[in-house]
Amino acid sequence: MFTLSHGTRVRKSPFYDATVDAGVSAFTVYNHMMMPTGYRDPVSEYWRLIHGVSLWDVAVERQVEVVGPDAAELAQALTPRSLSTLQVGRGRYAPICDHDGILLNDPIILKLNEDQFWFSIADSDLMLWARAVAQERRLRVTVFEPDVGPLAVQGPKSTDVVADVFGDWVRDLPLFGFRQIVHQDMPLVVARSGWSKQGGFEIYLRDRQYGTDLWNLLMEAGFAYEIGPGYPNTMERIEGGLLSFGSDTDAETNPYEVRLGRYVNLDTAPTAIGIEALRKIHAEGPKRHQLGVLFDEGAPLSRVDVWMGAQKDGVDIGSVTSSVFSIRLERTIGLALVDRLAAQPGDRITVDTADGEREAELVDLPFDVDTNLQRPAGPKVAPPEPAPPAG
Amino acid sequence: MFTLSHGTRVRKSPFYDATVDAGVSAFTVYNHMMMPTGYRDPVSEYWRLIHGVSLWDVAVERQVEVVGPDAAELAQALTPRSLSTLQVGRGRYAPICDHDGILLNDPIILKLNEDQFWFSIADSDLMLWARAVAQERRLRVTVFEPDVGPLAVQGPKSTDVVADVFGDWVRDLPLFGFRQIVHQDMPLVVARSGWSKQGGFEIYLRDRQYGTDLWNLLMEAGFAYEIGPGYPNTMERIEGGLLSFGSDTDAETNPYEVRLGRYVNLDTAPTAIGIEALRKIHAEGPKRHQLGVLFDEGAPLSRVDVWMGAQKDGVDIGSVTSSVFSIRLERTIGLALVDRLAAQPGDRITVDTADGEREAELVDLPFDVDTNLQRPAGPKVAPPEPAPPAG
Repeated sequence: MFTLSHGTRVRKSPFYDATVDAGVSAFTVYNHMMMPTGYRDPVSEYWRLIHGVSLWDVAVERQVEVVGPDAAELAQALTPRSLSTLQVGRGRYAPICDHDGILLNDPIILKLNEDQFWFSIADSDLMLWARAVAQERRLRVTVFEPDVGPLAVQGPKSTDVVADVFGDWVRDLPLFGFRQIVHQDMPLVVARSGWSKQGGFEIYLRDRQYGTDLWNLLMEAGFAYEIGPGYPNTMERIEGGLLSFGSDTDAETNPYEVRLGRYVNLDTAPTAIGIEALRKIHAEGPKRHQLGVLFDEGAPLSRVDVWMGAQKDGVDIGSVTSSVFSIRLERTIGLALVDRLAAQPGDRITVDTADGEREAELVDLPFDVDTNLQRPAGPKVAPPEPAPPAG
Repeated sequence: MFTLSHGTRVRKSPFYDATVDAGVSAFTVYNHMMMPTGYRDPVSEYWRLIHGVSLWDVAVERQVEVVGPDAAELAQALTPRSLSTLQVGRGRYAPICDHDGILLNDPIILKLNEDQFWFSIADSDLMLWARAVAQERRLRVTVFEPDVGPLAVQGPKSTDVVADVFGDWVRDLPLFGFRQIVHQDMPLVVARSGWSKQGGFEIYLRDRQYGTDLWNLLMEAGFAYEIGPGYPNTMERIEGGLLSFGSDTDAETNPYEVRLGRYVNLDTAPTAIGIEALRKIHAEGPKRHQLGVLFDEGAPLSRVDVWMGAQKDGVDIGSVTSSVFSIRLERTIGLALVDRLAAQPGDRITVDTADGEREAELVDLPFDVDTNLQRPAGPKVAPPEPAPPAG
């Protein structure tokens, strides 16, 4: 447990003061900004997401705005997912690749206007990549980071909370659909999206002076639904098989290795950077693939902060890239990036952990979690000291 | 004081285990990696740097390697500092700008071979920028991040320590000169450089398995010189007027605003990205300039983690971008980015701090520190609770 130092280089979110008032105790740093990762009761924070509603400061999901006459051309150059049918008011989860098909980021792309897009990014400076491409091609676009901070409302009761605040129209928003509104003077984008499998919304705040106001508005509306503070939840996202760029990827990872192949349109995105390399990878088959890891029963692992080597029958087959103790599965689980031909679901593996070798089984993703399981009364299934989530 | 969460996304340095053994208590995150920022005795850590020798884990200074037949062409395209006379075995501190002259990073560029360069970077993903330019121009280069971790030995006694380990040849290295060696099986680059004004070396470790060995080697050699652990020291770097990219710069900053104009060669780097924009900025004069801020006597400020607005005669003139209590000056000092025409050294200003308005004076950089001042016996000049350094 180390203290986080931060000066003016590591930025504060518009919701920072509100999260401090809410009792935040831990942060990580993501896109040069602090993101809350704990409020001292991780078990309650988990169950709130699973069965209730949770409010997350995810202002670290920075926006790269692409605006101008050539914005659509640049947006399509940046992703191998076809954007040709993307409407204004809709978004798409989309891989960004370099010319060799290597994954550089996995944002949601929001089309705000015909000539204006936001790339809501994972943890890498995608602005530098996008601006270099734009400027080298002399495209008529501006590429910059507007000061937009998303606040996520996640969990099965999130729709009721968000509808109580903004109106019943939010119930009709499709996944990744959004609307640009002004509510009580606050300029917002209200989108159905979020980095969990429990459903929810992301409210993009376009004027940071309203950070505490927006937080309080949602907290007050959520009071009747027992809302509480949360954050992108490592336990839930690994159970659900959600990729964490930078955690589960390395400098060689392509979309096919990490189950993003369905977002690569080899035929309908011919102008995308990397499309030729991706066609080749697809034709040959990727070297690695991502699977789940179900550890045998045992104590939760000590904090996992490096990729852990994995062997099958004594032969190296790849790495476990993320890991956490799952309350619902009563097991340590993880995500693995392993040799596609040598390692399959059902295989037994040995993992080199900080606590020594541990036995596990490779499984399909997402994990088979009992979604009806309620939080038990007793402490039995809670790990003695849950590892802090890591983003 | 918040806990830092870190999973596999925030990387550990090759020297992580050694710093934990040395009692590290605080980290920041820089280039997606943890960097030590405190060992529980900041006053001793400061004086060790000023009058002795200090060992810093600066593996977060990641390298962007550019290698291949067109490497020199790409390197020169990336910086407006002329590299035409740069020899193998030498480095140069160099601004990196976009096509509008905006500062994107301020690395040291090391020329390892005629076709191989390292950009030892500040906190932004310069690799994405460099790779996009390379790939868009179809240059015959590879752009990647090798796993190289620098360890800095800084302070007036650093030369003796490094010479005791590697030999007296290090005494003849000029500033930014380096040599590639293998020492006790460890592949290293030994360079005279470092992010302080106290002199020193950076030892680039090219094989992370030797992290603890290299740390221990330098600690053992330094024992006779009372070496101890340290880190890029906010107090010393503000006293010395060293720029912290990302702390003292924003999305609009150009080199002329932050005293890097001397590293822009408008005539001898005609192929550099941004050179035309920089010529225009130079001709018109930059809008802002960087000055020192000497606060009136008073208690040290609470932690400073946002830019603080500054006024002169009631008119906004810019911001104080970094701030710290200086033990030697017995004052809170800072760096400011202020209107070039409206604010000059000698001007009195008012600064909006978290503790309310504070009066200060704008001064030339670097600060006028008594370099002969010794650590006093009493606690008088130590701030009650020194702010953790921030990088």
